[in-house]
Amino acid sequence: MPTTVNAFGAHETGQPLVPLTLQRRDVGTHDVKLDILYCGICHSDINFVGGAFGPLPTSPLVPGHEVVGRVTEVGSDVTRHQVGDLVGIGCMVNSCRECENCRAGQEQYCLKGHTLVFGSPDPVEPGAHTQGGYSEAIVAPEDFVVRVPETLDPAAAAPLLCAGITVYAPLERFGARQGTKVAVVGLGGLGHLGVKMAKAMGADVTVLSQSDSKREASTALGADHYAVTGDGQAFTELANTFDIILNTVSAPVNLPDYLGMLRLHGTMVNVGVTTEPMPMDVFTLCQNGRSYVGSLFGGIAETQEMLDFAAEHGVTADIEMIGAQDINTAYERILASDVRYRFVIDGATFADLKA
Amino acid sequence: MPTTVNAFGAHETGQPLVPLTLQRRDVGTHDVKLDILYCGICHSDINFVGGAFGPLPTSPLVPGHEVVGRVTEVGSDVTRHQVGDLVGIGCMVNSCRECENCRAGQEQYCLKGHTLVFGSPDPVEPGAHTQGGYSEAIVAPEDFVVRVPETLDPAAAAPLLCAGITVYAPLERFGARQGTKVAVVGLGGLGHLGVKMAKAMGADVTVLSQSDSKREASTALGADHYAVTGDGQAFTELANTFDIILNTVSAPVNLPDYLGMLRLHGTMVNVGVTTEPMPMDVFTLCQNGRSYVGSLFGGIAETQEMLDFAAEHGVTADIEMIGAQDINTAYERILASDVRYRFVIDGATFADLKA
Repeated sequence: MPTTVNAFGAHETGQPLVPLTLQRRDVGTHDVKLDILYCGICHSDINFVGGAFGPLPTSPLVPGHEVVGRVTEVGSDVTRHQVGDLVGIGCMVNSCRECENCRAGQEQYCLKGHTLVFGSPDPVEPGAHTQGGYSEAIVAPEDFVVRVPETLDPAAAAPLLCAGITVYAPLERFGARQGTKVAVVGLGGLGHLGVKMAKAMGADVTVLSQSDSKREASTALGADHYAVTGDGQAFTELANTFDIILNTVSAPVNLPDYLGMLRLHGTMVNVGVTTEPMPMDVFTLCQNGRSYVGSLFGGIAETQEMLDFAAEHGVTADIEMIGAQDINTAYERILASDVRYRFVIDGATFADLKA
Repeated sequence: MPTTVNAFGAHETGQPLVPLTLQRRDVGTHDVKLDILYCGICHSDINFVGGAFGPLPTSPLVPGHEVVGRVTEVGSDVTRHQVGDLVGIGCMVNSCRECENCRAGQEQYCLKGHTLVFGSPDPVEPGAHTQGGYSEAIVAPEDFVVRVPETLDPAAAAPLLCAGITVYAPLERFGARQGTKVAVVGLGGLGHLGVKMAKAMGADVTVLSQSDSKREASTALGADHYAVTGDGQAFTELANTFDIILNTVSAPVNLPDYLGMLRLHGTMVNVGVTTEPMPMDVFTLCQNGRSYVGSLFGGIAETQEMLDFAAEHGVTADIEMIGAQDINTAYERILASDVRYRFVIDGATFADLKA
């Protein structure tokens, strides 16, 4: 039988979120159900409910895609998880599982389109849309639920499910390790985890920021160097320097400025996305045989790998915990860049909401 | 003592080339001297003398950077080549040899700037500029002279020194082999060698061309498939298809159209360059974790590797041989895309020129 759970979501595009109730489906043979302990707030939640990606795909819409919870029920065929396990759910809860990208473990690039944890038509419940982690409980297919090592602080681990894998995957793909020079552009939710992950991989890490205001914060996160880009001087001084530039900024940047800082066969990876086209200069790209690459969160297997890596190296997000009733305020503060570095909702507070 | 040699070059930007004579320096301890047997004509020769890269760096300027010749003299410390050897000279004849790119064998990316075979200040002859292969003989440091396998047709091998290495290096770097799907955009001097090299590496090769007019030529070169891009349909039909797209077109293309054809972790490599910025769409780049890369000819060691590979697999350019007196006509025909696929100057004809 479906369960009614408290949640927090949007009825209309661009309107404040409100308390509401959701039906969670009965646990199917391959499903697990979890009580949500913590859910991170990602900027793309705000984009979704704010209309940046178009009108709400369904109403109401409950965001939230950085979920950590404890398993309370498993379907009869479930083998990956047991009742009581600490687990996580990130951006997606299904994919076609048959295309070449799914078979390669890169379900985020599913050629038939992955099923987002919220706002996607749910293949398991025809006619329904998925609903996310701003709620008391969630039901999802076991294959899209990952183990969260018990040694991690579960609240601070929640943002790893989206922000963490988004920075880990390209750093790993492009070989960040001892001796690698990594630059992180932007020091928000993604960027601060980019610094921590790159440091944990052994890289030499520089934070690139428009002004001097984040220098101390950068050092506190473990970055080795800090460079101010606002006056343009860094682009000359740091020409031909980095193996990897991780661009976490979701706004246009002047690509030649950044590409020019890549050394031989270096790679600039965009994990921030912007809909505005950016002029690409082929001459700059040709010097040093430079690469410009896009990267979208990560596959399930590498998300598990990332969590295990995070546990081994003690990497979690710096968070500010809030109650569910403070989600709208948190959105405003995120839009004002007033958070270091991620809000996480205490899942216990959904019980107190009155729809 | 310096030697006077016949040559063909430009006195003024944008003017037709004329017969002239050049002084070639005496052979230094690390130099080799060669009689030029053949020299290919590359589009960038035309760009240089036509002013596309600015005014002539020196006057007169003798172009030519796809040189095959036979060694006639070696300096006292030369160990790599002997009198009588068949050798080649490509785009560059020197570099700093000390920067990290030179030490990595990627002298084309020398951080202090490589010395082009023509038009660069010559570090070996302070005050002089290098002069290229449209001439009877040339003197260059042994380290920038490569062996040309005797089994290769020396005339048809000449274009390998620029066009060949330019397509070989990125195909090799990005792993073209059996099972790799390679698309070649543009079927000119670079593109036709791209098809041949990719086939020789074992890849499945598609030629992408604006119209149907090169279909037969594409098949004759060994391409497995041909797709017309003019009506845009190919961009949909071939979405998520290629591991490598080798773009040889020296004009802007609509990047999202081409990037959309890359499959998981696929790479689009630009070896054609254009000074016009091209709008880059990050969303398209993020799907499939796609890469957009620039590549500039190749290093000396990989140029040697390419020539040995070409000999092993019987890869040479399709050429049309001309005499030195026909260089201006050849330029006009190249600009009209009227060549399959590379003009090569018969070096013996320089002797007949009257300056």
